[in-house]
Amino acid sequence: MDKVRVGMVGYKFMGKAHSNAYRALPMFFPDAPKPEMKAVCGRDPQGVEAARAQFGWESAETDWRRLVERDDIDLVDINAPSDAHKEIAVAAAAAGKHLFCEKPLALTLDDARDMLAAAEKAGVKHMIGFNYRFVPAVQLAKKLVAEGRIGKIYHFRATFLQDWIIDPEFPLVWRLQKEIAGSGSHGDLGAHLIDLARFLIGEFEEVVGMSETFIKERPIPSSMTGLSAKGSADGPRGEVTVDDATLFLARFAGGALGSFEATRFAAGHRCTNAFEINGSKGSVKFDFERMNELQVFFRDDAEDVQGFRRVLATDPAHPYMDAWWPPGHTIGFEHTFTHEVRELLLAIAGNRQPVPNFTDGVKCQEVLEAVDLSIAERRWVRIDELR
Amino acid sequence: MDKVRVGMVGYKFMGKAHSNAYRALPMFFPDAPKPEMKAVCGRDPQGVEAARAQFGWESAETDWRRLVERDDIDLVDINAPSDAHKEIAVAAAAAGKHLFCEKPLALTLDDARDMLAAAEKAGVKHMIGFNYRFVPAVQLAKKLVAEGRIGKIYHFRATFLQDWIIDPEFPLVWRLQKEIAGSGSHGDLGAHLIDLARFLIGEFEEVVGMSETFIKERPIPSSMTGLSAKGSADGPRGEVTVDDATLFLARFAGGALGSFEATRFAAGHRCTNAFEINGSKGSVKFDFERMNELQVFFRDDAEDVQGFRRVLATDPAHPYMDAWWPPGHTIGFEHTFTHEVRELLLAIAGNRQPVPNFTDGVKCQEVLEAVDLSIAERRWVRIDELR
Amino acid sequence: MDKVRVGMVGYKFMGKAHSNAYRALPMFFPDAPKPEMKAVCGRDPQGVEAARAQFGWESAETDWRRLVERDDIDLVDINAPSDAHKEIAVAAAAAGKHLFCEKPLALTLDDARDMLAAAEKAGVKHMIGFNYRFVPAVQLAKKLVAEGRIGKIYHFRATFLQDWIIDPEFPLVWRLQKEIAGSGSHGDLGAHLIDLARFLIGEFEEVVGMSETFIKERPIPSSMTGLSAKGSADGPRGEVTVDDATLFLARFAGGALGSFEATRFAAGHRCTNAFEINGSKGSVKFDFERMNELQVFFRDDAEDVQGFRRVLATDPAHPYMDAWWPPGHTIGFEHTFTHEVRELLLAIAGNRQPVPNFTDGVKCQEVLEAVDLSIAERRWVRIDELR
Amino acid sequence: MDKVRVGMVGYKFMGKAHSNAYRALPMFFPDAPKPEMKAVCGRDPQGVEAARAQFGWESAETDWRRLVERDDIDLVDINAPSDAHKEIAVAAAAAGKHLFCEKPLALTLDDARDMLAAAEKAGVKHMIGFNYRFVPAVQLAKKLVAEGRIGKIYHFRATFLQDWIIDPEFPLVWRLQKEIAGSGSHGDLGAHLIDLARFLIGEFEEVVGMSETFIKERPIPSSMTGLSAKGSADGPRGEVTVDDATLFLARFAGGALGSFEATRFAAGHRCTNAFEINGSKGSVKFDFERMNELQVFFRDDAEDVQGFRRVLATDPAHPYMDAWWPPGHTIGFEHTFTHEVRELLLAIAGNRQPVPNFTDGVKCQEVLEAVDLSIAERRWVRIDELR
Repeated sequence: MDKVRVGMVGYKFMGKAHSNAYRALPMFFPDAPKPEMKAVCGRDPQGVEAARAQFGWESAETDWRRLVERDDIDLVDINAPSDAHKEIAVAAAAAGKHLFCEKPLALTLDDARDMLAAAEKAGVKHMIGFNYRFVPAVQLAKKLVAEGRIGKIYHFRATFLQDWIIDPEFPLVWRLQKEIAGSGSHGDLGAHLIDLARFLIGEFEEVVGMSETFIKERPIPSSMTGLSAKGSADGPRGEVTVDDATLFLARFAGGALGSFEATRFAAGHRCTNAFEINGSKGSVKFDFERMNELQVFFRDDAEDVQGFRRVLATDPAHPYMDAWWPPGHTIGFEHTFTHEVRELLLAIAGNRQPVPNFTDGVKCQEVLEAVDLSIAERRWVRIDELR
Repeated sequence: MDKVRVGMVGYKFMGKAHSNAYRALPMFFPDAPKPEMKAVCGRDPQGVEAARAQFGWESAETDWRRLVERDDIDLVDINAPSDAHKEIAVAAAAAGKHLFCEKPLALTLDDARDMLAAAEKAGVKHMIGFNYRFVPAVQLAKKLVAEGRIGKIYHFRATFLQDWIIDPEFPLVWRLQKEIAGSGSHGDLGAHLIDLARFLIGEFEEVVGMSETFIKERPIPSSMTGLSAKGSADGPRGEVTVDDATLFLARFAGGALGSFEATRFAAGHRCTNAFEINGSKGSVKFDFERMNELQVFFRDDAEDVQGFRRVLATDPAHPYMDAWWPPGHTIGFEHTFTHEVRELLLAIAGNRQPVPNFTDGVKCQEVLEAVDLSIAERRWVRIDELR
Repeated sequence: MDKVRVGMVGYKFMGKAHSNAYRALPMFFPDAPKPEMKAVCGRDPQGVEAARAQFGWESAETDWRRLVERDDIDLVDINAPSDAHKEIAVAAAAAGKHLFCEKPLALTLDDARDMLAAAEKAGVKHMIGFNYRFVPAVQLAKKLVAEGRIGKIYHFRATFLQDWIIDPEFPLVWRLQKEIAGSGSHGDLGAHLIDLARFLIGEFEEVVGMSETFIKERPIPSSMTGLSAKGSADGPRGEVTVDDATLFLARFAGGALGSFEATRFAAGHRCTNAFEINGSKGSVKFDFERMNELQVFFRDDAEDVQGFRRVLATDPAHPYMDAWWPPGHTIGFEHTFTHEVRELLLAIAGNRQPVPNFTDGVKCQEVLEAVDLSIAERRWVRIDELR
Repeated sequence: MDKVRVGMVGYKFMGKAHSNAYRALPMFFPDAPKPEMKAVCGRDPQGVEAARAQFGWESAETDWRRLVERDDIDLVDINAPSDAHKEIAVAAAAAGKHLFCEKPLALTLDDARDMLAAAEKAGVKHMIGFNYRFVPAVQLAKKLVAEGRIGKIYHFRATFLQDWIIDPEFPLVWRLQKEIAGSGSHGDLGAHLIDLARFLIGEFEEVVGMSETFIKERPIPSSMTGLSAKGSADGPRGEVTVDDATLFLARFAGGALGSFEATRFAAGHRCTNAFEINGSKGSVKFDFERMNELQVFFRDDAEDVQGFRRVLATDPAHPYMDAWWPPGHTIGFEHTFTHEVRELLLAIAGNRQPVPNFTDGVKCQEVLEAVDLSIAERRWVRIDELR
């Protein structure tokens, strides 16, 4: 199999990122099957046509039901708003399509499990869009942990700090409405942290959390879009039904202690998706705002020159980087998706499940809901309570 | 009053730091009364005599009871191990001496309250050694918050990360024994974070925490000292009875969310006493390893040049710094104590209570014990449950 | 004009970068004409065909003379080794093609002037590939200077530090041979610094320099490629005929003092293309290894919060960035070329010369040769001596 | 010899720094002889008496001639304005006193040589105040170079950037007058860079430089002091007779290339005394604004984790630091002097010349004057032309 025919539902922020990845892949990773960009789908005929033209899709659809039925499509890429994920994924699986779904998998754990079950029943490949796994510096962190160079893990601490809704007059976009988004910073940002923790140091055992909605009401926007929107200060206001910030502590199966914080109210932080791992032999630190760098410390360095090393992960020795530019030449956010779809297409070609897949989506959702339960009941919750 | 006669109990790490502060004060802050270094006290006659000579005290005592009775002493400085604080402080107060006590105030909240009561009953001045308040960059953060330049506070996140006992063969020094130290990283490091949070953004409302002792047994050291010691790998081992790491979440009376972590197992961190405050107008960040710097962000900066400013807090416009060197010339850790004893001596001269004082010590202890209770009962604990 | 038909000569590092830019442009900048990737050209039939397939060109040529004659081509993109630039450019201009030439324009100032004359005589558009102008953070620096927000400029200091040939066994690739490359670090790296200086603060007046070849002989490589190659330690060696490092001081027409250093022997620096500008009102600092950031200082900030701001140039307020991702999501090296070809294609469509063009190439070459003359004669050289 | 009796001439910035060092030394370095602070000298009776009281000197003198004659003084510490150095030093040497002179040694190379000759003739110990050698992180850099861990040195690049006179209304203090200060940024700041280069990588061979006085006239100050002063915008103005900025290139005897820049017009830089050394095996970087840190890179680190290490030079393994505080607890600017006087007093006790001494002062002056000559004659100047 040297090509995979793709149909994509959704064309906003994530749709643009995915489109770009499909276009970049063949040039930088000719080892992977070539994606054919068959069709993009969205409800607004003019919007989807404009996206089709700009992003380079062959055709446009306005009804996802039509798209999942098309027999010239092998893979359905779902990046519509979160409340639509389940229905599309289940239908696409039933139609025998491979699945690539943005996170969060679904609005609830039950829905996520249904989606996994549908994919497994259909025997299709399924991937979930935890793209931060595919940052070269993150892969390097994984490699160091996996090779035992950090030792036994004691601590994992992670924050995802943004400030895009800190203005109280920022309008009530869909990401601030529970019935569409499912969750606020917890599901949007915290989900990434949870997945990175699982990827890097293993499974969660128990959690305790807290959350807050600092701004309870916001202007209702005249037009609703992905991340930006306009509302009127004099116009009607609606209730914010998701969390602005969620924090939790965790204990991992391997014995590590975890600290997690996701917020959209950290002034000055545009996208501080950051983690640090401390182990018996060393430490690693990452901050997505400097995504090409990994800070690494080794306890067995000579006594007089111990210190965190700023590793610029752009050398051929670093994951993915021999496909790109000479050392010192950085890559950007969008290529996390290029690496991600490479994994997806190689998995399809190799007849194996890609990683991360819907199982990872379900496990992430378990932790998210365990935190929610913990907040509701003001106590520690073991992940296996949800099983 | 232009001089204050000091007697000091303890001469290890903190005793050295305090001695240095008394020596430096008159040169840099001639506005404060001059401390007269009358006597230093310790149980080991040779040790205390060596400290007396090196640090420049006029006389040495081996029994603190004698020291607190001496009528040529106005102020008793207590930096002996934590289990001795209460008895000395109560006796010194009864003798009418002003009190300067290292943190933690006592091993338990009850003892701390007794100490405060004793000081209040005696009508003496009392100060507690939360020296990090006296870092110029921290004072600058306080000023920015107090002047409303950060706005309403949403988040406070703090870590105190060290790695000095990460080696499992590091011996069982007194700081790892509950009956002497009271607590491990929680009371030693976390106490500083709690005090900084109270200083900077106000009172705690409720907490939930977790803690761990990663290395359960360690070699019993041949000789016991402040921070360094030697043990034998083949020799006898004893149980570590304090926490290696403690984390907790908090809600503040003002509505902010807090995240706190204190650990001695963060490889590569020698002394990362760090905090960040996010408010509706801006943010500040501090890391003690770069103690002369404060990172500051303002939301109302021009749109195209927003970013965290690295403020090198060494200008005359910065707290304390007109007493020191020209801009760009940094000061070190030890002068947190110089500023601290200035506050103490000015308060004594001005017949007011210094800040922070035993009341702050008690309030810090309340939070520490609320976290302990939360860990024991696996639930959120309100601070007022302890009152 | 809504499309421009491109033929490209060369397909190594720069050819890959240009190809990627042509592919990315329509997706992110639909305001520009769409480039049609008609033909790629190289001497090795298998190599060029592989590049054609991977990079997505419609056809391949092995003789650049055929390519420049093709009447389905509007624009000739020249990124072959530097010694071939002139002949191709002159022929392509004669054939009425617009020109896009990688830097350095030519091996000598005379050749560069001939190229400019040929382009002007033919009345075609001409651009030179000083891609670093097109980093958003660099454009932001330019904007701040141009708007007077940095004030009168006193200092410009720039370094381009790499370490890719620091190993004495690294082989004698074409970039180390004067007859092909024209120059070493001076022409390769220093040329970028010179162009950035001209772009940001204006024309040079006089220079004095020094240079060195630290490793005089190197293994002759078995196969010669762009940046990587293999040689044998036992095999034959050849003389390195270009500089390993060149430094120079400069005085600018506007009165500023300049310091420049280009080296391939700075261990630990993969691509430190960095500059700092100090003016009467403020300063800016840039380092390509963190290409999404600009450090900015303003003297009129409030006294107690002055400091360099780390501006993450990924907001909509920053040049180009509304075409990309949400704030905090960085872009990579390759999109300097995307922005560059946008300028080129917009200029062609708008019937104006793009910037930077061959005139900038000539002026850069003047400074390069003034430095060379200064080194040869051990004295200051005024740029106008070369005119 | 267990004590050295000190008389000090000058009591402004440097006098305060030296006084503090004498006071701190016995507490932190009991291995050194104890300095006895016998007398401080200055022309203004009230000023010198105030300094005496604040800094803790036993007596005050208003005529340095009396001071150098006192037979209860072993060591004369000269930190008066530079134009007074020579006369005092020669007289003190003649009186058999050991000498500790601030930099620059004298206003001219000839005077510096006379001072060295006088000291040698008298057989006294002589030290010059290049205090930056005594930063622990700088000593660590020296150690790494000396042990061969950086390899053969290719590059030394150094800047000393300040901004304290960038305001054109800053008055014409003595440091801006050639007849008193001898030189501007070149002699004040550049001298430190030259000494650090000599200390770290060896002797200079030849130099070429440039300099500028950006602000030619300034208000004449009403009262003249060390670094701060007030002038009136309407009042009389006088000519600035020293350089605001001086840059130069250098070739070292060992083959390295050097770049040097000293300026007082770099907005945002309070005290960026910074250098980087690149060698065949690695690199080190230092910035005095973060004086407790050294950045270190080793080429033989494992390929996937190469990067500059941020070494916080506060461990017992680092120079001087076992005398101070636990790891992670930084020291400040002033203790460069504490380490400096330790060297001086140990040398006096050990009957050897301290390092750096007047010979280093003369060699620094040679380089300073070679740069001046180079500027005057617009050509490269070999250091040995001045011998």
